[in-house]
Amino acid sequence: MNKEHLFEHIKEKQSFLCIGLDTDLKKIPEHLLKEDDPGFIFNKEIIDATHDLCIAYKPNLAFYESLGAKGWLTFEKTIKYIRTHYPDIFIIADAKRGDIGNTSAMYAKSFFEEMNVDALTVAPYMGEDSITPFLNYPEKWVILLALTSNKGSKDFQFFTNEEGQHLFEKVLQKSQEWADDQQMMYVVGATQGRMFEDIRKIIPNHFLLVPGIGAQGGSLEEVCKYGMNRQCGLIVNSSRGIIYADNSENFALSARNAAEKLQKAMEKELKNIME
Amino acid sequence: MNKEHLFEHIKEKQSFLCIGLDTDLKKIPEHLLKEDDPGFIFNKEIIDATHDLCIAYKPNLAFYESLGAKGWLTFEKTIKYIRTHYPDIFIIADAKRGDIGNTSAMYAKSFFEEMNVDALTVAPYMGEDSITPFLNYPEKWVILLALTSNKGSKDFQFFTNEEGQHLFEKVLQKSQEWADDQQMMYVVGATQGRMFEDIRKIIPNHFLLVPGIGAQGGSLEEVCKYGMNRQCGLIVNSSRGIIYADNSENFALSARNAAEKLQKAMEKELKNIME
Repeated sequence: MNKEHLFEHIKEKQSFLCIGLDTDLKKIPEHLLKEDDPGFIFNKEIIDATHDLCIAYKPNLAFYESLGAKGWLTFEKTIKYIRTHYPDIFIIADAKRGDIGNTSAMYAKSFFEEMNVDALTVAPYMGEDSITPFLNYPEKWVILLALTSNKGSKDFQFFTNEEGQHLFEKVLQKSQEWADDQQMMYVVGATQGRMFEDIRKIIPNHFLLVPGIGAQGGSLEEVCKYGMNRQCGLIVNSSRGIIYADNSENFALSARNAAEKLQKAMEKELKNIME
Repeated sequence: MNKEHLFEHIKEKQSFLCIGLDTDLKKIPEHLLKEDDPGFIFNKEIIDATHDLCIAYKPNLAFYESLGAKGWLTFEKTIKYIRTHYPDIFIIADAKRGDIGNTSAMYAKSFFEEMNVDALTVAPYMGEDSITPFLNYPEKWVILLALTSNKGSKDFQFFTNEEGQHLFEKVLQKSQEWADDQQMMYVVGATQGRMFEDIRKIIPNHFLLVPGIGAQGGSLEEVCKYGMNRQCGLIVNSSRGIIYADNSENFALSARNAAEKLQKAMEKELKNIME
């Protein structure tokens, strides 16, 4: 999916919401545990209840891997289900991969050919040849970690050179040599507040994947105020706040309500760029 | 496995060799492809032929993930096979994971509880709370990326602050606040040559996992000269140079010969610290 296509979907749905499918068998409603593949049934019900309110789903691989091969099957079935029933949805595999060239090429094959997701989160530490193998797939996206939402983001991402440039700014700057805003996005945490202003000076046009709304405490209003551009430029993720809104038998409806609340807030924010 | 235990194995086997199980169905001998699980059979034969010459195996997850759930089964079977037949072998899952706290905790559960590997490679970019969840398992190890073997290591790992400290040095320094040399090791590429001297000034006692010998061009002699400490302190990995030494029906014997050549060279190097 290219950038224009993505923006079209955002306008149609009046939403730039991504729902994180961080599916944890310890947190899903108990009545699902008697199913053959409880994780998949949970995802299916969440997806059926929310697909018109969001533009993207983002399964985090950690939650699937923790169940071994069985978890991978759940992951694969979930991707297939979205592709078959809701082909316009943008699918992000949140995997934070990155390795030496020949190994990154294997990861790229896995996610872009076998799984056929639209985008993959990638960690920048190993540099150019760990990232470029993911760029050999037209209309597939690398979402590079830049400034993450967690407390530990302070440990290395703000490491500063003698010109006052932070590491995350170096990542933003350097990575533009490898791909443009049609193949690369960046992770910037909602908890980073006004840093969005500085980031937009370096990458005015790129889409940002923004985690950290909800459970992690980030504010949608602030993110939009400092981070939105004329093609929206934001995919805002919520995981736990939506999928675990309620763990009764009504979980899917509660997830829908939580997603709708965010979608309404996004609709309001989008008015600022629609004339 | 603790550090002393690891050093005991190194002395017994006169080897600090790790064999990288980067098992790629496109590269393994053709006659194996008719098997039900060719990747597992390949690994099993390599392991049976080399286990007395090495102290560790390091499957890289990318090669297994590229086959989806099926590949995960191959990975799981390989770990179980090593655990059952060669219980003294140190198993490193080369996965380069790292995510926000609750997600890293899921990865830790996956690799240290479900898979029961001894060590996991972790990427440092997201900082403390992305790494500490892996440290809740006694005698399990985090192997943190510090200075990698690839060309792209130059892009960010040498980013330098105003005191002249490089990012990888900051990673070495800061991470010592989180764990000592009984729970943490570092990845330092064999291609980094004399940098080992500087690294040993910061972490004299830690074990280093050293990829980049062989296909990537690093030198064992140089690594030992600048990187070895009194408890060896090195686990040197070779993947392609051993497992793909030959792709005829004799592949396992050829792998043994390639591994033996390295083991002999290591035996010679170990003499320098044995009195």
